[in-house]
This record gives sequence, structure tokens and C-alpha cells, in this order.
Amino acid sequence: MQHGVQIGDVLPESRHKVTQDQIDRYAEASGDRNPLHIDPEFAKETMFGRTIAHGLLSLAFLSQAMTAWDWKGWAFGGGLDIAFLGPVYPGDEVAVRGKVTALEIGENGVIAVCEVACTVEDRTVIAGTVRRRLETA
Amino acid sequence: MQHGVQIGDVLPESRHKVTQDQIDRYAEASGDRNPLHIDPEFAKETMFGRTIAHGLLSLAFLSQAMTAWDWKGWAFGGGLDIAFLGPVYPGDEVAVRGKVTALEIGENGVIAVCEVACTVEDRTVIAGTVRRRLETA
Repeated sequence: MQHGVQIGDVLPESRHKVTQDQIDRYAEASGDRNPLHIDPEFAKETMFGRTIAHGLLSLAFLSQAMTAWDWKGWAFGGGLDIAFLGPVYPGDEVAVRGKVTALEIGENGVIAVCEVACTVEDRTVIAGTVRRRLETA
Repeated sequence: MQHGVQIGDVLPESRHKVTQDQIDRYAEASGDRNPLHIDPEFAKETMFGRTIAHGLLSLAFLSQAMTAWDWKGWAFGGGLDIAFLGPVYPGDEVAVRGKVTALEIGENGVIAVCEVACTVEDRTVIAGTVRRRLETA
């Protein structure tokens, strides 16, 4: 196998401090302007009591870590199976971790399976699995 | 059940024209600056031959559609199980569709399962399932 990815490989940990300004820019760029993320008055009345970051922003940190690691273009020909487990507030620092847990060799090529997690201090905010095609049969 | 969501409910279809400018802004806002998305010279040498949008940008269109529908804050307490099946190029128009296919009633409450897809003309670029907690037991 030419891809150089092995079971047990660990994604270098990365950290991202989230600000309201970044959330606002993400909302504009993505078009996802849910007031829960950008309107403090609206957010005050929700169960969160204040604005929270888009779950997909934390997922983007994960994507960025994959790109910086070795998986250029990982999002194409791959998949995600993740759960959003808790909110990220402005001011929180999101840590991204991942580990290759399996290589699946099938008719269509080689798929790497990577267990991933985003945490804020000791709270897990995203957890799940990323699958990425490494080689086409 | 108070949530008003029923099996067979259909997400209003939405459409998003993707531009390189939007991809650039998404890269800046998310921090995901993979050159495949923002550097035409780099992208020219890849299998795509030109820049492609971030997969998570199309996923953000889906998130936005969920928000506009009825699932405010859907990303928290929910999950995604999706595959990235093809590239989205600048100039492409992404159509977002979804349908509620199951309601799971368990110890922890009620979960709605929604089958979702993003397409460009007759190509499917994202397909999978979104799960959202509607009620807590």
C-alpha cells in the first residue's frame, strides 16, 4: 500500500479559540444565519442563555486538521458519522483530536477510518468517525 | 407528541449557487484554507482540474435548510451520517432536499431521522441521514 497511513496513526492535536466575530463571519460566508448563533437577544431566551457557535464550525476545525495532517481533499470520496454532543460558546477553545482505527480493504479500494473528537476543556462537543478513501482499486 | 414532526414530512427544497468568492470567504471564516479550494494553480494539478468547494460548505446549506424549516438549533443533540460523493465547482447550483423517514422513541426521548441529499443537476454530491432530538424524555 502506497498511502503511508497506518492503524494507530494520531492526528496532531490542534486548538481553535472561537470568537463571536468568527461565528458572525462563518454565518455570513455559509449563509447559515440561525439567530441562535448571531443574535444575543434571541439567544438569551434559549436553553443556552447566550449565542453558540455553529456545530459545522467545529466540524470545519476538524476538516482543517485533516487537511493539515495528510488527507488533502479528504472530504471527497469520504464520509462523516458524527454526533453533536454539546454547545461551543464564544471564548471557548476547541481541541481537535483523531486516530486511525481501521483500514478497510475492499473491492473499491482502501478506506481509512479515523475516530475523531472535538472537546472544550473536559467536555466532548463532537465525536464520531471520519472515513476517507486512500486508494482506488 | 408536541413536536409536530411526522414521518413523510418533506423539507422545502432550497438552492444555492456557489461562487469562488463565497468559497474564499468560507475558507477565511472557517480557517479551512486547503489550496484545493482557493488556489487555482494548485487545483489545476489535481484530479479535479480546478478549485472545488469545501464539502462542509454544501453541508452548511443543508444545515441552513434545517434551520429555515423547523429544526432551530438542530445541530445540538443531533448527528450526521453522510457521504461526500462528488465535487461542487464554482458556478454549480446545489439543491438541498430532505424527508423525515423515521421517528425513534426511546428512553432518552424522541429522535427524528431525516434522509438528506445535496445534488448538482443530476449528480448527488452529498447523501445521508440527519438525526435530531425533538423531545427529551
